[in-house]
Amino acid sequence: MPQARVAVPDKALRTLVSDLFTAHGVSREHAETVADVLVWANLRGVDSHGVSRIPRYLELFENGQANPRPNIVVDVLRPAVAILDADAAPGPVALTRAMDEAVSMARSAGAAWVAVRGTVHTGAIGYYTERAAQYGMAGMGIVAGVPNMAYPGSDSAAVATSPLSVAVPAGRHPTVLLDMATAVIALGRIAQLKAQGKQLPEGAAITRDGRVTTDPAEAAIPLPVGGAKGAGMSLLFEMLAGGLTGNPIVTGYHSGEPEGRRHRQNALLMAIDIAAFAPVEEFRGIVDDTVDAIKALPKADPDAEILVPGERGAHTLDERSASGVPLPRKLVDELARLAADKGVTVPQEMA
Amino acid sequence: MPQARVAVPDKALRTLVSDLFTAHGVSREHAETVADVLVWANLRGVDSHGVSRIPRYLELFENGQANPRPNIVVDVLRPAVAILDADAAPGPVALTRAMDEAVSMARSAGAAWVAVRGTVHTGAIGYYTERAAQYGMAGMGIVAGVPNMAYPGSDSAAVATSPLSVAVPAGRHPTVLLDMATAVIALGRIAQLKAQGKQLPEGAAITRDGRVTTDPAEAAIPLPVGGAKGAGMSLLFEMLAGGLTGNPIVTGYHSGEPEGRRHRQNALLMAIDIAAFAPVEEFRGIVDDTVDAIKALPKADPDAEILVPGERGAHTLDERSASGVPLPRKLVDELARLAADKGVTVPQEMA
Repeated sequence: MPQARVAVPDKALRTLVSDLFTAHGVSREHAETVADVLVWANLRGVDSHGVSRIPRYLELFENGQANPRPNIVVDVLRPAVAILDADAAPGPVALTRAMDEAVSMARSAGAAWVAVRGTVHTGAIGYYTERAAQYGMAGMGIVAGVPNMAYPGSDSAAVATSPLSVAVPAGRHPTVLLDMATAVIALGRIAQLKAQGKQLPEGAAITRDGRVTTDPAEAAIPLPVGGAKGAGMSLLFEMLAGGLTGNPIVTGYHSGEPEGRRHRQNALLMAIDIAAFAPVEEFRGIVDDTVDAIKALPKADPDAEILVPGERGAHTLDERSASGVPLPRKLVDELARLAADKGVTVPQEMA
Repeated sequence: MPQARVAVPDKALRTLVSDLFTAHGVSREHAETVADVLVWANLRGVDSHGVSRIPRYLELFENGQANPRPNIVVDVLRPAVAILDADAAPGPVALTRAMDEAVSMARSAGAAWVAVRGTVHTGAIGYYTERAAQYGMAGMGIVAGVPNMAYPGSDSAAVATSPLSVAVPAGRHPTVLLDMATAVIALGRIAQLKAQGKQLPEGAAITRDGRVTTDPAEAAIPLPVGGAKGAGMSLLFEMLAGGLTGNPIVTGYHSGEPEGRRHRQNALLMAIDIAAFAPVEEFRGIVDDTVDAIKALPKADPDAEILVPGERGAHTLDERSASGVPLPRKLVDELARLAADKGVTVPQEMA
């Protein structure tokens, strides 16, 4: 049965998130960054990475796995590479800072990679690569985390559903924005389908004991997209992010030590300054023309629109900016309870 | 019926390739590079990207789409980015040079991207990323080419099967090397299965008129891996490589002009100098430990080995370095004929 939903204006939602995080000791600046990243995901329809994550974020503060007052240190190693020690900062805080550093370094070096060591849940990484695109740059990002996905030959939580995101700025069209898990289906999406009473697609996930299932209630371990391809990407992302930061996750997880299962993530964000290669307007023109060529492809179903990456999210953003973010009643109530616990005022639109 | 095979020592094969290319006007240095790249693919078992491509390469010289005496120009734009104008050089020549530039620039900048404009068939791009790993760096590469793969919503040749490769150096273990098409199956692999009289896996390709098939004889258009994921990667690779080089391919292809269907490719290669982040030995240790953790995962089938990316290729390289590259008799005869046409001596192992 579909749940009742409450349409909350994005501005009110951002205010609530920011107030909730400051009430947990996060600085106003960092709290506003977290609010921006989470509400951005909701606005674009990626509800699995939006404010539904707040209870978990706050739990990470409470059990000491996330740090509300992190001492973030950026070490510029060479003109095009830096490492950001996140000190267990919430992912949105660490990764927004990292992408801003990458953009700033790319202005002089032409491109830059910033490795992020030891953050917690990064949110939708499309936020950071789209941020590079807003500066007229191409953005790329990968994240590596605690194993939760199968690997060819092993029906266990072997590697993470580590995402890849690439964004390029367009002109007439919205930013072309790919943001994909290396799994057939993300864990957040499984939870969403469960809440909606829907089935999983075939071949998307297995149960805890390795049985293929389409029931989201018993689906525990997503399968890698394309088998060895998705698993290989995830493994290489782990080796790059964990190796460059000296903070591997997969080895610790499989070592059997409880500490190895602690929630943590590493990331690598990259910006390429398009202006080093050509006038940005020419690049935007090529992206626009390519989008037009794709949308004009012969259609398998004449009534179905052909979409480019990020297009559906951009449409949803327009709709939800106008009419609010539709949140399940249950989530609104949970956020209201978390707010009440800390004496935070809930926006009247959510009452 | 499996074809008769001839085991050719890699050294003899390299000599033949190099002699064949010099006979077509390629410099000895460039011819040896082409030989290295093609024979490397054969040694690693990627026969779809090895010497079987030679007839096609020579045809590209003859019809003027490839240039045997290219004027390759590298323009270093900023410390971490360069553009290489390939002047229609064979892919192995252009991309080997591009990766060497990226490695050299990464030594001072920490990382570098080199965009390759207007080359022809790049061969197996794992060769170039593994080359970065041999210098103790992490390598990444993408290639964009002429559309030959379907796109969600269109059962036509919409985008290319553009590959992604990532390589990281290990210590005890071989380089971990991911080299994957964004299609479920590469076109070269379809041709191989056809030659072997085998069927395609389900959901890998469609016929010219959009029908799903497992018959390699009628399979014409591979499907993207993971649907929107593989198609999205391919499209973003095209926008990055075509946009940064000012040489888009997808738009020209769909414009309907015959010139737009001409074979050509762009690429982006990247090197990250691991030593900028940490001692390379520590990085290698993390990669080794991660490989060990994956290989020790609980197995779905107790008798099956769990593999990491590049591992099978490294085993095959050992075997074939010792016992020769097994080539179909038909291919050996074709190479011998091409050699005879130009008065090139065929190594006695192939006679």
